[in-house]
Amino acid sequence: MKTVSENRCFGGVQGVYSHRSQATGCEMTFGLFLPEEAKDGPVPVLWFLSGLTCTHENAMTKSGAQALASEYGIALVFPDTSPRGEDVADDDAFDLGQGAGFYVNATQEPWAAQYRMWDYIAEELPDLLAAKFPLDMDRQSITGHSMGGHGALVLAMQLPGRFRSVSAFAPIAQPTGSDWGRKQFTAYLGQNEDSWKAHDATHLMTEKGFDGDVLIDQGSADQFLDLLRPEALAQAMMAKRQAGTFRMQEGYDHSYFFVQSFMPDHVAFHAEELWK
Amino acid sequence: MKTVSENRCFGGVQGVYSHRSQATGCEMTFGLFLPEEAKDGPVPVLWFLSGLTCTHENAMTKSGAQALASEYGIALVFPDTSPRGEDVADDDAFDLGQGAGFYVNATQEPWAAQYRMWDYIAEELPDLLAAKFPLDMDRQSITGHSMGGHGALVLAMQLPGRFRSVSAFAPIAQPTGSDWGRKQFTAYLGQNEDSWKAHDATHLMTEKGFDGDVLIDQGSADQFLDLLRPEALAQAMMAKRQAGTFRMQEGYDHSYFFVQSFMPDHVAFHAEELWK
Repeated sequence: MKTVSENRCFGGVQGVYSHRSQATGCEMTFGLFLPEEAKDGPVPVLWFLSGLTCTHENAMTKSGAQALASEYGIALVFPDTSPRGEDVADDDAFDLGQGAGFYVNATQEPWAAQYRMWDYIAEELPDLLAAKFPLDMDRQSITGHSMGGHGALVLAMQLPGRFRSVSAFAPIAQPTGSDWGRKQFTAYLGQNEDSWKAHDATHLMTEKGFDGDVLIDQGSADQFLDLLRPEALAQAMMAKRQAGTFRMQEGYDHSYFFVQSFMPDHVAFHAEELWK
Repeated sequence: MKTVSENRCFGGVQGVYSHRSQATGCEMTFGLFLPEEAKDGPVPVLWFLSGLTCTHENAMTKSGAQALASEYGIALVFPDTSPRGEDVADDDAFDLGQGAGFYVNATQEPWAAQYRMWDYIAEELPDLLAAKFPLDMDRQSITGHSMGGHGALVLAMQLPGRFRSVSAFAPIAQPTGSDWGRKQFTAYLGQNEDSWKAHDATHLMTEKGFDGDVLIDQGSADQFLDLLRPEALAQAMMAKRQAGTFRMQEGYDHSYFFVQSFMPDHVAFHAEELWK
């Protein structure tokens, strides 16, 4: 593991690190904010999964989460969204290939060899973090934005017991019914739609739900609302009697200005569960 | 108008009054909490519509709302849920007839003459309140529980401009699709289901929405969940991009213990709009 940079930040350290990944077969970069309390022992962890086109850097620089995490003594992990590099498969579209891993293990060519973001986020990166940093891996929660909200919700429901709470900002809520999902799942997972269901938050909410509290924020002026399908997930949550809150925030769009506006609520929400 | 009782309460007065109603053709009783600030001039008004079997008294004694309304300087109105009296039509069932007006104007016999709770709540009682008490009728909001949550949502959407905000505790969210609704609408409005739509919150949310903020709380252990259909309203809210919050509160049932637990959030929510 290499240290790319470390910056003093709200009494703690905002680091960027890279490492050779087994899962993706390439060098992967991630951001990690450690609050001041990490000097004295392991601290809880909040994952932030990013959206289409993002690297590890977007939320790290634009979400405002460190100010809040420092108050609660919580670490923040900012993974990348796909394998990267000149030798890694890609597509001209912004929503397929590099920057658009959708948090799945691809089974189709040319993606199968390296587009294994599920394994990377669910297994390899947690193991690396646990080995290298003072993190209390028994206290993890997860959030994300857009494609990352999709990833957060799916990981939380597919890995029961792993995360104490899950939230999402404008998640891709029903990818199997959206052009943000159908296109990518066809490319990565193939045409058998049964294989897609394991990565659809609305489907998983209906079938499994989450053993903990859920918070979803969605902007009413989001330019991608028709692709995100919040109504499907809201219906599934309430039909499941899932403990949680679904909010439609008037006038907010899909940007990080939206994300940073509600980040205080999300970090407070997770902190309450992480420090129980 | 007769004064039934007036009790000092959180620095203000909890009154109970009765009057001969034109709309229902019988004596009607309502509760009104006036905060201390009402001595100095008109104060904003928060309506609380009650559920099946309730009179004006249940929320007045069990919701805990006065403590909160006194902090914000807001009046509370607690209307009854139907016409009352030995000569008033009734049914042996708890969910039809007296205590179960559903906030409609009945068109069918034997209900049509007196079951005119829509006119009573939307017109007659506001006129009376405005004439007799120091209330700022330009600053009104509305909430309610169960059948009263249904009433609050329907009134708010059907009377645009009247209410600044609307909330509900465990509302009957889609009465046209529930045995809490189909039975009563058939009795009161007749078998033509088109006439029911004007009193279905999910339908109105889909067709109209509300020009303001909406807050809904629902308990996940509510014994009547299948009759309430929160998932239908949650879907409609998010599909409409309606500004608002829908919360599934884990482990809460349908009682006033649930209502009083979240009353602080609801009064604060309305106070923010009422004092804008």
